[in-house]
Amino acid sequence: MIKNVRPWAEAQTDITISGDRISAIGAAAGGAGAEVIDGAGAILLPGLIEAHTHLDKTLFGMKWNVNDVGYTLIDKITNEREMKTKLGLDPARQSARQVAISVARGTTHIRSHVDIDTVHGLKGVEGVMATREKYKEFIDIEIVAFPQSGMMIRPGTAKLMDEALAMGAEVVGGLDPSSMDKDPKGQLDAIFALAVKHGKPLDIHLHEPGELGLFTMGMIVERTKAHGLTGKVTISHAFCLGHNDYLVVGRMLEDLARNDIAVMTTGPSGWPCPPLIRTLDAGITVCSGSDGIRDCWHPWGTGDMLERVMYLGERNYLSRDRDIRRIFDVVTTLGAKVMDIKDYGLKPGNIADLMLVDGEALAEAVASCRPRRLVMKRGRVVSRDGAAPFEVA
Amino acid sequence: MIKNVRPWAEAQTDITISGDRISAIGAAAGGAGAEVIDGAGAILLPGLIEAHTHLDKTLFGMKWNVNDVGYTLIDKITNEREMKTKLGLDPARQSARQVAISVARGTTHIRSHVDIDTVHGLKGVEGVMATREKYKEFIDIEIVAFPQSGMMIRPGTAKLMDEALAMGAEVVGGLDPSSMDKDPKGQLDAIFALAVKHGKPLDIHLHEPGELGLFTMGMIVERTKAHGLTGKVTISHAFCLGHNDYLVVGRMLEDLARNDIAVMTTGPSGWPCPPLIRTLDAGITVCSGSDGIRDCWHPWGTGDMLERVMYLGERNYLSRDRDIRRIFDVVTTLGAKVMDIKDYGLKPGNIADLMLVDGEALAEAVASCRPRRLVMKRGRVVSRDGAAPFEVA
Ligand SMILES: [Zn+2]
Ligand SMILES: [Zn+2]
Repeated sequence: MIKNVRPWAEAQTDITISGDRISAIGAAAGGAGAEVIDGAGAILLPGLIEAHTHLDKTLFGMKWNVNDVGYTLIDKITNEREMKTKLGLDPARQSARQVAISVARGTTHIRSHVDIDTVHGLKGVEGVMATREKYKEFIDIEIVAFPQSGMMIRPGTAKLMDEALAMGAEVVGGLDPSSMDKDPKGQLDAIFALAVKHGKPLDIHLHEPGELGLFTMGMIVERTKAHGLTGKVTISHAFCLGHNDYLVVGRMLEDLARNDIAVMTTGPSGWPCPPLIRTLDAGITVCSGSDGIRDCWHPWGTGDMLERVMYLGERNYLSRDRDIRRIFDVVTTLGAKVMDIKDYGLKPGNIADLMLVDGEALAEAVASCRPRRLVMKRGRVVSRDGAAPFEVA
Repeated sequence: MIKNVRPWAEAQTDITISGDRISAIGAAAGGAGAEVIDGAGAILLPGLIEAHTHLDKTLFGMKWNVNDVGYTLIDKITNEREMKTKLGLDPARQSARQVAISVARGTTHIRSHVDIDTVHGLKGVEGVMATREKYKEFIDIEIVAFPQSGMMIRPGTAKLMDEALAMGAEVVGGLDPSSMDKDPKGQLDAIFALAVKHGKPLDIHLHEPGELGLFTMGMIVERTKAHGLTGKVTISHAFCLGHNDYLVVGRMLEDLARNDIAVMTTGPSGWPCPPLIRTLDAGITVCSGSDGIRDCWHPWGTGDMLERVMYLGERNYLSRDRDIRRIFDVVTTLGAKVMDIKDYGLKPGNIADLMLVDGEALAEAVASCRPRRLVMKRGRVVSRDGAAPFEVA
């Protein structure tokens, strides 16, 4: 039992946990003999949902890697593929390092895209799977089979993705079918075929801007409809929804909503991106994530989904407390919907995945971003006061 | 003497301080009997320059204020003017609170715009002046007489600004002469007249976007030239330089460079803004700042100019170490040039305003943003390990 907590920063109450589930929310709900933790008036939230990251390739904890890469996407992808070998990047160790940070910050579920290409094969997937197994008491990890180096331009990639999905990757990935592969029909037909074959959902990186991205997005919508994959497709980044044509974007938002296609946005500050409130108001499920943290692409990132609320707020010029409350849905409930997490949320009967953070109000908790007072995974305390839940050699 | 420091994250050396100045940089430079501090290999930087903030109106340390304000600039300005009274905001206390944070984070100089309007008169200026005097051993503060509520639409404001400048405000402010006052000629003639009368520089907030902002900016350029104020004018925000017309923006950048007009950018993520590298490459002095932190406008902000490097990097899609090195110029040397700080920088003979922060590389120090190991103002240690330099009741 945790006494004196404020669910969603609202009225103070107590929460009782039995085994791995929440048994009651309400004052004095605990039975005699229950272990009692004092929440000291902290804000109680369900576990945060990191719905888009790249666990296999963070450089966190490794020697600083001087970044001197070109600005284009292909520069960055090529450099990264080569640096993995040069730096001796170990996906199991590196993913464990990032997971340790995420758990300490209150994340209880991660969807990680994991690189698959013809140079490194399934090493990334195997590494993240090892981490997933080793730390399964601390966090749930979902793996997206992700063709970072392209599919059609790298024959053999589709077969590797097929193997990864057979091995247990839960989601079919994709990447810029037009600008990367120069063959949108080819890539999209291939990944939708994998989704149908394995009965798994899709999560497609779409950085393509403006009219080009809208063109590719239209092809994703068509295939979602044709294959009956309503509610099973996520488009990550979706920069083209930041296109400066209100009506054209509005029509696309309607199409996405009609096919229950989710959108993932990190609230990037250097790109156009989906207008958050408009996208939510269109009835679209929006989730968020840290994307890569401290990798060969860029040096930034903390993996903190509470801090992410601030980025989403700033990017979308949202300052009102009630707007920030809506962003909290993105990093909790809506992310859980995208990942299809069962029994999620602060309700009796649901899994006790939760966190406590001090704060006067939700927005204040974000602005101050203090160490998490407590993080619980399936009823077990996995971190206190921001401490690392486990050591990674 | 501070041993084992790495100026700009380069080779390790020692630095010797005598009185308020740097007397030598180089191994074993200290004389016998000198007090020796071990820098333990930390990065040595000159004091950070916060070249744009609003000390008079942070709500930091006050009870959380629920933000439910409209989205327009005038909504925010009107709300803020009223909230100052409702919340009993004390500019002396609040500016002291922000200064304490800034000092702990290694800032040694602040340029603060301070509101002047016909409701609150010079209370803000008086409050910040009290803070400036009280904490002058810790930090240097420059005050911009800032007509936040407009000038031409609020008769009496120009007179108050005149008084503030006579009292010791160092810089003449301005605000959106077209969109706020609807009288660009009126406002610009008035503030340039004040600058000439008092022999003081100008720093003008210009949020006006696109073609409108470029129009107003052109009028600022004309007056700078006409009054011989080359090198004495800063344009803050300058969102219109983020306009999507490469050639038109290029012509304006040339005009700014020719008249040595500086640009201040915070790297905002929700607005178009000056392209950082292009602006620097045009020969323009660029400085940066936190703008308002935790105020009636928005809940965010930490006042940390090291973290600001990350915002500027992200906004401008800069990830390379050598690009990030250039952003460090913005928050140090170039900011010092804008504020016309004498004897600034890591050189023998200059004032010993400096900070130490642990980090493998400059970009790593930013990404990790650890508490500052040591902050020194005029040869005196004012903070260690991120500790507050003084308490504010
Ligand atoms: Zn990604
Ligand atoms: Zn400002």
